[in-house]
Amino acid sequence: MSETPPTPLSTDELARIDAFWRACNYLAVGMIYLMDNPLLREPLKEAHIKKRLLGHWGASPGLAFMYCHTNRIILAHDQEAVFLAGPGHGAPGVLAPVYLEGTYSKIYPNKSEDEEGMKAFFKQFSFPGGVGSHCTPETPGSIHEGGELGYSISHAFGAAFDNPDLLVVVAVGDGESETGPLATAWHSGKFLNAARDGAVLPILHLNGYKINNPTLLARIPEDELASLMRGYGWEPHFVAGDEPMAMHQQMAATMDACYARIQEIQADARAKGADKVSRYRWPMIVLRTPKGWTGPESVDGHKVEGFWRAHQVPLSGLHGNPEHLAQLEAWMKSYKPQELFDETGKLKPEIRAAAPTGNLRMSANPHANGGLLRHSLRMPDFRRFACDVERPGTVRAMNTKPLGALLREVMRHNKDHFRVFGPDENTSNKLDAVYEVSKKLWLEEYLPEDEDGGELAPDGRVMEMLSEHTLEGWYEGYVLTGRHGFFASYEAFIHVIDSMYNQHAKWLAICNEIPWRAPIASLNMLITSTVWRQDHNGFTHQDPGFLDVVVNKNPEVARIYLPPDVNCLLSVADHCLRSMNYINVIVADKQNHLQYLSMEAAIKHCTKGVGIWDWASNDEGHEPDVVMVGCGDIPTKEALGATALLREEFDDIKIRFVNVVDLMTLHHEGPHALSERDFDSIFTMDKPVIFNFHGYPWLIHRLTYKHANHSQFHVRGYKERGNINTPLELAIENEIDRFSLAVDVIDRVPRLSVVGAHAKQRFRDMQIDARNYAFEHGIDMPDYDDWTWPY
Amino acid sequence: MSETPPTPLSTDELARIDAFWRACNYLAVGMIYLMDNPLLREPLKEAHIKKRLLGHWGASPGLAFMYCHTNRIILAHDQEAVFLAGPGHGAPGVLAPVYLEGTYSKIYPNKSEDEEGMKAFFKQFSFPGGVGSHCTPETPGSIHEGGELGYSISHAFGAAFDNPDLLVVVAVGDGESETGPLATAWHSGKFLNAARDGAVLPILHLNGYKINNPTLLARIPEDELASLMRGYGWEPHFVAGDEPMAMHQQMAATMDACYARIQEIQADARAKGADKVSRYRWPMIVLRTPKGWTGPESVDGHKVEGFWRAHQVPLSGLHGNPEHLAQLEAWMKSYKPQELFDETGKLKPEIRAAAPTGNLRMSANPHANGGLLRHSLRMPDFRRFACDVERPGTVRAMNTKPLGALLREVMRHNKDHFRVFGPDENTSNKLDAVYEVSKKLWLEEYLPEDEDGGELAPDGRVMEMLSEHTLEGWYEGYVLTGRHGFFASYEAFIHVIDSMYNQHAKWLAICNEIPWRAPIASLNMLITSTVWRQDHNGFTHQDPGFLDVVVNKNPEVARIYLPPDVNCLLSVADHCLRSMNYINVIVADKQNHLQYLSMEAAIKHCTKGVGIWDWASNDEGHEPDVVMVGCGDIPTKEALGATALLREEFDDIKIRFVNVVDLMTLHHEGPHALSERDFDSIFTMDKPVIFNFHGYPWLIHRLTYKHANHSQFHVRGYKERGNINTPLELAIENEIDRFSLAVDVIDRVPRLSVVGAHAKQRFRDMQIDARNYAFEHGIDMPDYDDWTWPY
Repeated sequence: MSETPPTPLSTDELARIDAFWRACNYLAVGMIYLMDNPLLREPLKEAHIKKRLLGHWGASPGLAFMYCHTNRIILAHDQEAVFLAGPGHGAPGVLAPVYLEGTYSKIYPNKSEDEEGMKAFFKQFSFPGGVGSHCTPETPGSIHEGGELGYSISHAFGAAFDNPDLLVVVAVGDGESETGPLATAWHSGKFLNAARDGAVLPILHLNGYKINNPTLLARIPEDELASLMRGYGWEPHFVAGDEPMAMHQQMAATMDACYARIQEIQADARAKGADKVSRYRWPMIVLRTPKGWTGPESVDGHKVEGFWRAHQVPLSGLHGNPEHLAQLEAWMKSYKPQELFDETGKLKPEIRAAAPTGNLRMSANPHANGGLLRHSLRMPDFRRFACDVERPGTVRAMNTKPLGALLREVMRHNKDHFRVFGPDENTSNKLDAVYEVSKKLWLEEYLPEDEDGGELAPDGRVMEMLSEHTLEGWYEGYVLTGRHGFFASYEAFIHVIDSMYNQHAKWLAICNEIPWRAPIASLNMLITSTVWRQDHNGFTHQDPGFLDVVVNKNPEVARIYLPPDVNCLLSVADHCLRSMNYINVIVADKQNHLQYLSMEAAIKHCTKGVGIWDWASNDEGHEPDVVMVGCGDIPTKEALGATALLREEFDDIKIRFVNVVDLMTLHHEGPHALSERDFDSIFTMDKPVIFNFHGYPWLIHRLTYKHANHSQFHVRGYKERGNINTPLELAIENEIDRFSLAVDVIDRVPRLSVVGAHAKQRFRDMQIDARNYAFEHGIDMPDYDDWTWPY
Repeated sequence: MSETPPTPLSTDELARIDAFWRACNYLAVGMIYLMDNPLLREPLKEAHIKKRLLGHWGASPGLAFMYCHTNRIILAHDQEAVFLAGPGHGAPGVLAPVYLEGTYSKIYPNKSEDEEGMKAFFKQFSFPGGVGSHCTPETPGSIHEGGELGYSISHAFGAAFDNPDLLVVVAVGDGESETGPLATAWHSGKFLNAARDGAVLPILHLNGYKINNPTLLARIPEDELASLMRGYGWEPHFVAGDEPMAMHQQMAATMDACYARIQEIQADARAKGADKVSRYRWPMIVLRTPKGWTGPESVDGHKVEGFWRAHQVPLSGLHGNPEHLAQLEAWMKSYKPQELFDETGKLKPEIRAAAPTGNLRMSANPHANGGLLRHSLRMPDFRRFACDVERPGTVRAMNTKPLGALLREVMRHNKDHFRVFGPDENTSNKLDAVYEVSKKLWLEEYLPEDEDGGELAPDGRVMEMLSEHTLEGWYEGYVLTGRHGFFASYEAFIHVIDSMYNQHAKWLAICNEIPWRAPIASLNMLITSTVWRQDHNGFTHQDPGFLDVVVNKNPEVARIYLPPDVNCLLSVADHCLRSMNYINVIVADKQNHLQYLSMEAAIKHCTKGVGIWDWASNDEGHEPDVVMVGCGDIPTKEALGATALLREEFDDIKIRFVNVVDLMTLHHEGPHALSERDFDSIFTMDKPVIFNFHGYPWLIHRLTYKHANHSQFHVRGYKERGNINTPLELAIENEIDRFSLAVDVIDRVPRLSVVGAHAKQRFRDMQIDARNYAFEHGIDMPDYDDWTWPY
């Protein structure tokens, strides 16, 4: 693997790339330490030093090194590229070249390419009101913040999909390499179609240490690491050393070799065609450099360069320690700033020439501000897939099945910028209509039996792998670079990616405040195989708590929809697929369910997000005795069941039936929140509200506690009661079933308290009969399964 | 790797092991299909078939195959072993041998070893009121439910740690192998000390398919898979085929070879000593068998055996389909039940002899019911590490540092059954005192510089790897097998293991209802580097939402503590380390903080969990104007600051100061909940309560909404506002700072509404000054940093 010529760089080229890199390192140190005297024009004094030293030197020189050498490839081949920095807190190593390329100053004019601008650029770093030590959304060219570890590779692949001309260089930290998400993301190469997609070049950066520990991959034998990478399907190239000039030559030669191999693979694949290719063994680089490379070798007698002590701020306690101050000055001067910057403080043009210009700069590449490239989806009319509902609550359909048809048509008309993601469950989730237009991407071995319903194809656009982390990472990378998608997953296991949800929501919330970030497509997540139909899978599969995680985030970016039936689901999905800068979470079960609204009614209902269902109510514009609320498909059915039981039992009871589709309408703040007046007019000021909810009941209290009638809200939902059951039995255990709700109403409506005693007993008896039937036959009672709305 | 003799089994042995396996497969099919006629004594009829067919046939025969061959090793060597089944829904393959070994009938007498018992055993499977299709806690011998994918290997290692005589055989699904947690857990071999720990033998089961898809690892070239396993540090042995007799010979030979190699490694390591060993290349097995092995080859013209169609129920629609019914009968009879079971329905003794007896049965091994083996920790007196607090709120200390000393002493006195887990952050989290007694486990290469503060040792008992998943999995496996531990992690990134928390909490909640499961040590999690000191790391590092996930689970198993200072933290930690069957989440920041309570006062306060701090209150037993609440270390400090500001400003204001340590005291239900009377006497019936909370504010509303004074609760907490800040600035943005709280009080106490206008303005001005100082100097104002309680 190292048969590449050792010295591809001419003396001039070598000097130029090294000077650019030294400038990067100089800036990285400056960002960490200085708030004044940026060019060291006067002797360094305590007053020039920030009081609180933050940021991480350790990874910075290595990141800048990779960035510089990627620039060399870009220049040599006019190659479009983006750069993702996986290691946390390594932003100085990326911000530096971004500034030197001129992009930073263009976007942030106060950080101009001169002494004053450099001073401001230094000071803002990890400084109150400034920018963070990760590649945050404020960083031009970044689509990956780093720091929350493990998503660099999956983000990189998401960016490369359907971008055949793009090279995605991703610096992978040896720290993050220990995480689960990263460990499995190496398999992403098995999902990259070389004819249709761009290339990902991972550079595994072995700088050897985490905060206080050696990293695993840096300390295992090199042949074991090579074996691991080959096992993942990559061809590793090793670059190792600490002498800068030799390392530049080695890195340049290796980048050339990798790039040549990428071109060879792509030429081969593109000659064959996207539908004929199989997986290639792509090149990757293992770059072994000292942690804190070119920084202080030792401080106070402790080894620093090449050790974990270089992780954060290698020299600290500068105030009152002239020795350390002098060491910092000597360190900074070792980069020879006077050779790098001109009089005004601008990088000298001959050095600047080591980086590309215009949109070839990775910091200015529009793929990294994906909204610029985003085309709206060509959308079919979702009404085509409507379920015919003549009378509410009388027909049944599988709620997610027509959504599959909608997705199929979206796929048909948007073949180069739409993908569907799901962990091996799109068929199980009844979304399989999508395979009529595009199969599951599969580039490994094919067997004859795959023909029989395997739905596999080398150019499939449905991405299935049993890793929610990888799927979510791909999907995020895909939308961040301006495309669209849809993700479906099992409700209980979506918690696997809570943390990824949190980070993407935070990214979007910050982007909302950055005017130059163009809006991107929303992340659309269908949560299905929901708690109320996990009766047979049992307790571990019952967890509607993802919604609690979702609502913790900024209501400007988080949305939750609980469509009760097919037509509402279609209307909601259409809305979500057209939306931007949100995370839309749609909760809908895949099983056969009662249908309530015609398409016209569904559109109206979903547009409002919450509303009274007149056909199920009999309060006819008056104050009702009770407000019955269904929120979610199955809770709505049970709430209707209770309503019917009560109306049958009590001639004069006045029930208002409300359905909530858009959970954020209940919130007391945020753009979707109902006005106080609207809320009160739906839920009344003082009548009992029996709220049958899909998730944990307290979530509704947390949303509604500021509203006038809150003390009358009686919420039913999942209370962590379940084992191996039938659907009705599970509902009964958690008291969301029609019988429990009907009893609830009798208990809450004062005038029923006496006359209702008999009815209560009857409802309880019905409940017991239903339960016993399940225990005997293993299924629910036919008259529960077949129940329809009787009015 | 296949130089092992091909036929280690004699004809008799072969017949016996195959018969046992056939019996397992027969039972597995019976569980899925039958509710009557278990021994097929009469022709199979529809009435014998369950109405709803559940469970997963696909993985079952392979699991039973591994179980049988592990039994052979146990018998041959009197080897103690436990078995973990990674694949989801494979329980029939494990329940079957557990029943045949007699363990099941002993624990559940109605599932006796006879025809009637077998019928009940069949019927209960995936049947309402019965048992699930995973290896749930009800399964004797199980410490790993499977089904939520990816934790099998880390659980297995947790079980093997400090159990030198134990062999842990873990069946790893090729589906779960695609998950992140599993992908990185293969590195666990780098943390197994062969002298001190037991052995883990992973069997990667390539049955080729997930629900509807081929698996990645089953379709990559075999040399690539071998390379991957070697890269992870294992020596792979391949067993592949579908002809049972040949497969038994192959598997037996391979198990022999692996077992011999394990013994060789252990002998070598134990001769060297635990402090001298390094990592070994342990054997593992890749077992390639058809999915649904021995099941129907095809159904209705579709290939089933060896294809994804065998994943769940290969033959369905039996009612009304005599052909399918006949196929099922033929399938079951292919196992020749009449040869396997005697007249009464009990397994014949000569076949029973293929399994061990007594506690050597994996289903009866006490390690898998770890509470049986649990010894209480020898606990030091935590008062020794107390912080000397003469006057509240006047001295400062790092809250987590003395906890490190406590953990050090726990470690010192419990060296064979206590470990500390943390992702590379125990030093950063100020728990490094523990290294004085035990270092970080490290079995890879050592470099000279490691001597300088590396704190590494081959026999270290502090487990550090940058994978929260792996750590949590190890820790769970460790406590499930009867030992103790402590886990510390960063607050924002603990969301990475939300899903693991959920599953362990569910496991514990079920165990509470299983009388034969002995109580195990609680899982103790310290959440540190908390949101209020992530000002400098920025928005992505600010997320206190793990608590919201925690409270969703059963209050019988979930606990949350927010000790305000060192002495409270010590008292809480002592309590948690002694407790059983909980998950204790302790939130405490690692930075320098004000100290409030003497040790004596702290113990009293923590025992109650919530209380009035008289020294900070001036309502002297009367109804106050306002109740000021601090919950969490930093919110408490700010609440005290506000209290001081207000008392200084208004001579006659009466403030009651309350601190909450045990969050579950606020809950309206569960064993820690305050009685309504106690709650009202602390929080009053009608006075404004300004509640300064560590986490998201709505969590408090969700806990307290049923209490009388809830409408007067004004909760402050983290509201997703943050970027690069100072601590005070971050507090201000989220309105938990002293100035905002003081203004809040003026707004809420009617009699201050007029007289307070000036004070409000002054507080606002102070806030602006503080903010400006930070923006100028990059640090907080000295008089904020140095503030102490003035009374």
